[in-house]
Amino acid sequence: MIPRYSRPEMTRIWEPENKFRIWFEIEAHACDAQAKLGVIPEAAAKAVWERGAWDIERIDEIERETKHDVIAFLTNLAEHVGPEARFVHQGMTSSDVLDTCLAVQLKQAADLLLADLDRVLAALKTRAFEFKDTICLGRSHGIHAEPTTFGLKLAGHYAAFARNRERLARARDEIATCAISGAVGTFANIDPSVEQHVAEKMGLTIEPHSTQVIPRDRHAYFFATLGVVAASLENLATEIRHLQRSEVYEAEEYFSPGQKGSSAMPHKRNPVLTENLTGLARVVRAAVVPALENVTLWHERDISHSSVERMFGPDATVTLDFALNRLAGVVEKLLVYPDNMKRNLDMLGGLVHSQRVLLGLTQAGMSREAAYSAVQRNAMKVWTEGKDFLEELKTDAEVIAHIAEADLETCFDMGYHTKNVDVIFQRIFGV
Amino acid sequence: MIPRYSRPEMTRIWEPENKFRIWFEIEAHACDAQAKLGVIPEAAAKAVWERGAWDIERIDEIERETKHDVIAFLTNLAEHVGPEARFVHQGMTSSDVLDTCLAVQLKQAADLLLADLDRVLAALKTRAFEFKDTICLGRSHGIHAEPTTFGLKLAGHYAAFARNRERLARARDEIATCAISGAVGTFANIDPSVEQHVAEKMGLTIEPHSTQVIPRDRHAYFFATLGVVAASLENLATEIRHLQRSEVYEAEEYFSPGQKGSSAMPHKRNPVLTENLTGLARVVRAAVVPALENVTLWHERDISHSSVERMFGPDATVTLDFALNRLAGVVEKLLVYPDNMKRNLDMLGGLVHSQRVLLGLTQAGMSREAAYSAVQRNAMKVWTEGKDFLEELKTDAEVIAHIAEADLETCFDMGYHTKNVDVIFQRIFGV
Amino acid sequence: MIPRYSRPEMTRIWEPENKFRIWFEIEAHACDAQAKLGVIPEAAAKAVWERGAWDIERIDEIERETKHDVIAFLTNLAEHVGPEARFVHQGMTSSDVLDTCLAVQLKQAADLLLADLDRVLAALKTRAFEFKDTICLGRSHGIHAEPTTFGLKLAGHYAAFARNRERLARARDEIATCAISGAVGTFANIDPSVEQHVAEKMGLTIEPHSTQVIPRDRHAYFFATLGVVAASLENLATEIRHLQRSEVYEAEEYFSPGQKGSSAMPHKRNPVLTENLTGLARVVRAAVVPALENVTLWHERDISHSSVERMFGPDATVTLDFALNRLAGVVEKLLVYPDNMKRNLDMLGGLVHSQRVLLGLTQAGMSREAAYSAVQRNAMKVWTEGKDFLEELKTDAEVIAHIAEADLETCFDMGYHTKNVDVIFQRIFGV
Amino acid sequence: MIPRYSRPEMTRIWEPENKFRIWFEIEAHACDAQAKLGVIPEAAAKAVWERGAWDIERIDEIERETKHDVIAFLTNLAEHVGPEARFVHQGMTSSDVLDTCLAVQLKQAADLLLADLDRVLAALKTRAFEFKDTICLGRSHGIHAEPTTFGLKLAGHYAAFARNRERLARARDEIATCAISGAVGTFANIDPSVEQHVAEKMGLTIEPHSTQVIPRDRHAYFFATLGVVAASLENLATEIRHLQRSEVYEAEEYFSPGQKGSSAMPHKRNPVLTENLTGLARVVRAAVVPALENVTLWHERDISHSSVERMFGPDATVTLDFALNRLAGVVEKLLVYPDNMKRNLDMLGGLVHSQRVLLGLTQAGMSREAAYSAVQRNAMKVWTEGKDFLEELKTDAEVIAHIAEADLETCFDMGYHTKNVDVIFQRIFGV
Repeated sequence: MIPRYSRPEMTRIWEPENKFRIWFEIEAHACDAQAKLGVIPEAAAKAVWERGAWDIERIDEIERETKHDVIAFLTNLAEHVGPEARFVHQGMTSSDVLDTCLAVQLKQAADLLLADLDRVLAALKTRAFEFKDTICLGRSHGIHAEPTTFGLKLAGHYAAFARNRERLARARDEIATCAISGAVGTFANIDPSVEQHVAEKMGLTIEPHSTQVIPRDRHAYFFATLGVVAASLENLATEIRHLQRSEVYEAEEYFSPGQKGSSAMPHKRNPVLTENLTGLARVVRAAVVPALENVTLWHERDISHSSVERMFGPDATVTLDFALNRLAGVVEKLLVYPDNMKRNLDMLGGLVHSQRVLLGLTQAGMSREAAYSAVQRNAMKVWTEGKDFLEELKTDAEVIAHIAEADLETCFDMGYHTKNVDVIFQRIFGV
Repeated sequence: MIPRYSRPEMTRIWEPENKFRIWFEIEAHACDAQAKLGVIPEAAAKAVWERGAWDIERIDEIERETKHDVIAFLTNLAEHVGPEARFVHQGMTSSDVLDTCLAVQLKQAADLLLADLDRVLAALKTRAFEFKDTICLGRSHGIHAEPTTFGLKLAGHYAAFARNRERLARARDEIATCAISGAVGTFANIDPSVEQHVAEKMGLTIEPHSTQVIPRDRHAYFFATLGVVAASLENLATEIRHLQRSEVYEAEEYFSPGQKGSSAMPHKRNPVLTENLTGLARVVRAAVVPALENVTLWHERDISHSSVERMFGPDATVTLDFALNRLAGVVEKLLVYPDNMKRNLDMLGGLVHSQRVLLGLTQAGMSREAAYSAVQRNAMKVWTEGKDFLEELKTDAEVIAHIAEADLETCFDMGYHTKNVDVIFQRIFGV
Repeated sequence: MIPRYSRPEMTRIWEPENKFRIWFEIEAHACDAQAKLGVIPEAAAKAVWERGAWDIERIDEIERETKHDVIAFLTNLAEHVGPEARFVHQGMTSSDVLDTCLAVQLKQAADLLLADLDRVLAALKTRAFEFKDTICLGRSHGIHAEPTTFGLKLAGHYAAFARNRERLARARDEIATCAISGAVGTFANIDPSVEQHVAEKMGLTIEPHSTQVIPRDRHAYFFATLGVVAASLENLATEIRHLQRSEVYEAEEYFSPGQKGSSAMPHKRNPVLTENLTGLARVVRAAVVPALENVTLWHERDISHSSVERMFGPDATVTLDFALNRLAGVVEKLLVYPDNMKRNLDMLGGLVHSQRVLLGLTQAGMSREAAYSAVQRNAMKVWTEGKDFLEELKTDAEVIAHIAEADLETCFDMGYHTKNVDVIFQRIFGV
Repeated sequence: MIPRYSRPEMTRIWEPENKFRIWFEIEAHACDAQAKLGVIPEAAAKAVWERGAWDIERIDEIERETKHDVIAFLTNLAEHVGPEARFVHQGMTSSDVLDTCLAVQLKQAADLLLADLDRVLAALKTRAFEFKDTICLGRSHGIHAEPTTFGLKLAGHYAAFARNRERLARARDEIATCAISGAVGTFANIDPSVEQHVAEKMGLTIEPHSTQVIPRDRHAYFFATLGVVAASLENLATEIRHLQRSEVYEAEEYFSPGQKGSSAMPHKRNPVLTENLTGLARVVRAAVVPALENVTLWHERDISHSSVERMFGPDATVTLDFALNRLAGVVEKLLVYPDNMKRNLDMLGGLVHSQRVLLGLTQAGMSREAAYSAVQRNAMKVWTEGKDFLEELKTDAEVIAHIAEADLETCFDMGYHTKNVDVIFQRIFGV
């Protein structure tokens, strides 16, 4: 998490102010529940809400002494609340506060990421419809294959991000649990109803069984899901990088007037945003392995997971948030060059229609083997001699013996490849 | 995937026989749909079902020539079906068959893994209820903390595996899609209704947009989920390894009469099964990173993902299947030693009740600071001098000034810690 | 490790025959050392060498009973050697044999990989000199940058593989240690001189301190090094995939007459070998994380590392061996198209010389800012209007005011960019 | 990289002040070389050294406009140097400065880490000799095996860290290269002698062939090496965590008077430092995968590696530096409890001598099978009935028939296990 790759909306979630606000709410709601149970005076609970406040610098000062962040916070809270503060945190452990707070923070982060995904989805949908019928090359293995449309390309990425949105929504629901169960999770010193109350107020569900800590398979699942989102992001970023290659040049990141692509080479317009996204995806994915390693804690808990989460909790969410927004911006403003798409389509003298010719010859009665051989020998002349595919076919005796020139030309009809675009759009967008 | 860590139920899924059976079904169902559309004769579709057969050795022989597995299969199929075979595979690409087949295999694998999880869950539930009230130490940081029950420990792992079951069921549904859409996914040469028909017959849903291949974010999510399951498995295996440590010795893998723990040291009884599970979990988790890297394919597809899946598809599912069954067996037959649990609980002279004493003193009017200090100074004598905690407290003037000896003894009541076990079991098991 | 991606030279190392041969040699050499110490009779040691033999099927049969591979081997060995066999393995533990054997196998694997690297290096060197002066585009960000030569590209990869060769040689030396030190590594039951003797005979160094096992940081380092080699391999494979893209088409994997690129599209010539290498690199790299996780063993040893090594030991070395040979073949037979390189160089109307023009204008007295602005405004016309760069510059009043047309044309001289190729070749190849 | 896990010595390396200092030195040394070549005036080079200065806030201000860090720095430098500044950076690209600077920073970081390792090594050596003859349990599989000494344990970890020191020194030498070769590495605009001069002055070697960037296999190797160091660190941290377990309690992290282990449970003394180290090791290891992914750049370079390095460059080095120092402190002050070691050794009634008894019986003429069976049946009584091993053996008729009681007692001699400690120390420490 470095400023260069951060948005304040997300960094705010990980800042002390938000953390202490959540800690306060957990403690104050717990007081309400304890008061209702008669464990502490109602006046105490009320006092906490009324006079509860904290000062980050003062907390830091206390922590430097006590070396315990929760105690430092409670001490400072007591300085504001007064004597009734002794009823705060009763029967609770630090982990009750810390783990429930982390759940709230990850839920907040997930909500922001879901909004980010919505922005990406909206951008992809808009541009997909814009270029729904813009014919371009489909490529397999980096080699010209058959025509598709640029809208279809974007629609496919839309579908992937829609899946990712569902995955993330589930991971958010899974991570959003509340644990207030005491030292080893037995509720020895606190009634389960307190956990229930705090959970409701904080927008969480109760953790069925915490053992001082919330089980880390939840967190592993959360970060693994972020990793999958990042992988899809990398996939789209790589597509754009490919399309912007000088020789391909079918699309391009927006390049503002006056922008400099390179200090040394004034002609450069580089896809630096999507390259950057490729790297950021690696950063997000790097959180997956340690999150999986964090699941194995010794007995009821050890604290090995903590440092990993202190670093990757912010790093993975902040980086993904930044990356999704950067991606949305790239898609929204992407420069698209249909003329170049057409140029590339025509570049290999009609080779993209080879399958159609193959099928045409087969339907006209040639054996598949003979047809394949005929098509391939003419296609190879395009690769090696730069000939025009259709012209070559027309002069091939065996081909012409089986198919009329007009029918051959029909095989080069682009509409053949786009007739089901509506069906696919219907599947993806429902319209 | 090596025999030592494999069960035939799972390896069978990845063997040629199962693969060719699925290929055949995809092709035959596609023929039905094509016949219905009038693209091919109904008699051809019928012939495929009636005379369709294949011979693995013959396929291998053909593949050695053609170096293309799908063509080899189709050639051999034609040898059985006869002339009508020329209508098979019409308008389809190899990937239509390969990717849909992989989806079926991963779904079959997931079904087996779900059954494995059911076995693990059943074992955990049975043993959890068996030891529901068996008091043992809860430990944080490997250090004695407060009492819990052995049933609660197992119940917590049950809850984790129940979550994993849900995750895997979702991942199975996500991976189970059918793609029959042609060279770049435009349905140029095949009607979308064929895909629909094959999907229904094979128990799959249609892939909204495939681009010759099914998008690899689905596979990444699948393998990431296996990684999370493996992480939970490692967590439980590690718990058992800890409990079997000589000094702890609260539980032990089943050791049959006549078994040898070590060729050199006849006294050994080692937790080799759970240690092995720890290693196998690493193997399963190792599939996550390459699966995430596989998501980024160039344009409509490249084939970089293929070798990864050929190796990790079998490896990760076979290994996890083996590991889950080994784990279930370990749990089912786990030797549990309640007497040793009690011995360990008493080992530190009652230190596990320190929080209870602290709260007792606070409630009796001591300030938290003074109470903490009093409890700690007596506790430290247990650590450093091996004294009995209760006895020490009874001779501490400050303590005795605040609390009656009888009340102090009440703080050492085990029942205090187990009063909410029912609540937690209710949450987890619903009973 | 699957046949498709395996060479017999490497799989042989991991087969039972080689393993048992190594086990035998370790035991027999140990007998010699023990006999020399007077611990066992000289006749016994002699008998082992003379009559020592084994039968894999018989060993398997015994192992099915004893469930212990080393005991099964020793039992079968005794069946051949006779009564003197009771002196074999004296004072040793199974791990002494297993870990020393693994060291020998990894050393053998490393030697094969070093030979593979030599083949890759030889291929790269030959082709680098072949195309030393073949001018082609240098590209940054996938965008045309400035001219370089194809030989320089290959020379850079040669340098990377030369570094990898050194790294692997070091990792081989590190992994090649011998441990014969007993149950917890104290030499309680065997004299250190036995270890010394076996080490010498097996071509290993002694492990300064084994604790039943050889410390796993050695293995982690070994597999991490394989991961780095795989990463360099992926880098070169990706370069070739890029060069073969239809629009770029500067190089191409060898495509034999009669080969089929796609069953559906007869025109296809796909870079499937290098795409496959990209995937195989992921497989090799996947061994790095579990190898790092294997380092942490409990106390003197646990057996969690074993299953990981049983799978990734063969998988990583066999896959890398296969991949390096595939890569060497690709490089040796790579089709290179200098004409297309030239076509691409000229494609952007001389834009690749923009820095040279910038420097020329600066030297001619323009401020860097003004020069940059002038060059960029003319360059952008090439991007957006397809103009010729040099022609545009010649008609730009501000440019012409500063520089003579002849000097401008000099800026478009290719030789400017290749003048130091010899220097770089000298650095890399020493000639 | 968060303050909690950072030491200023290392963070300083990554701060703007150090970065700009290095940038300045690179530029100024380059000017010297250019002046010597006659490319720029000697006075200009002199002016740069004499008046060269920069102001971080001003640079930030300029960067906000230009969005280019190197240009911002050069602009600000020019504000201090004056008109001669136009000769700075001539013929260079930003990457020449950035990559060479990163090399310097990683070298500085490696030097600090080497010093850290020296501190760890010194601590391990001191404590190893302190406890060279302190007998304690060797454990395999977490189960009592045979005696060793605490000094031997530490000596083994010393040997691992000594290996890591060598590895890191090599990785440092590999990463410390200088690249000043221009846009695609051809030295078109700058003479190779400039690179040579700057390399010498900055303590680097020349990069034989950079392609605008230094090849990333160097960085991958560097971070992979850090990962191996972290793995060894985790191994030692885990050993200490195990030894501090309540039931084992043979060693303990230093616990200062007045320290609090838990706010709720006053009796707690937790191994929180070594648990933290376990987590930090995961953080360092997390940099390995993205570093390996960074090796594959498109053609002469893309910028995907940059964001990864901006985050993990500091994160991995700062975290490892912190962790190594924390580890050194833990080892230096580790509380060691020889009495508890003895107690644990005796705990299983002498079972640790089972192999010795087995060998004794064999030497006394029993067959290995009969001896194993006799030893095991008596050993199992210790496990299941808590009997004393020696006493049981003495009352076993078959045992006593073969071995005299005195000889049996000899088998329980501890000295048997420590006789070769000197040999191992000699191997590791040379003394």
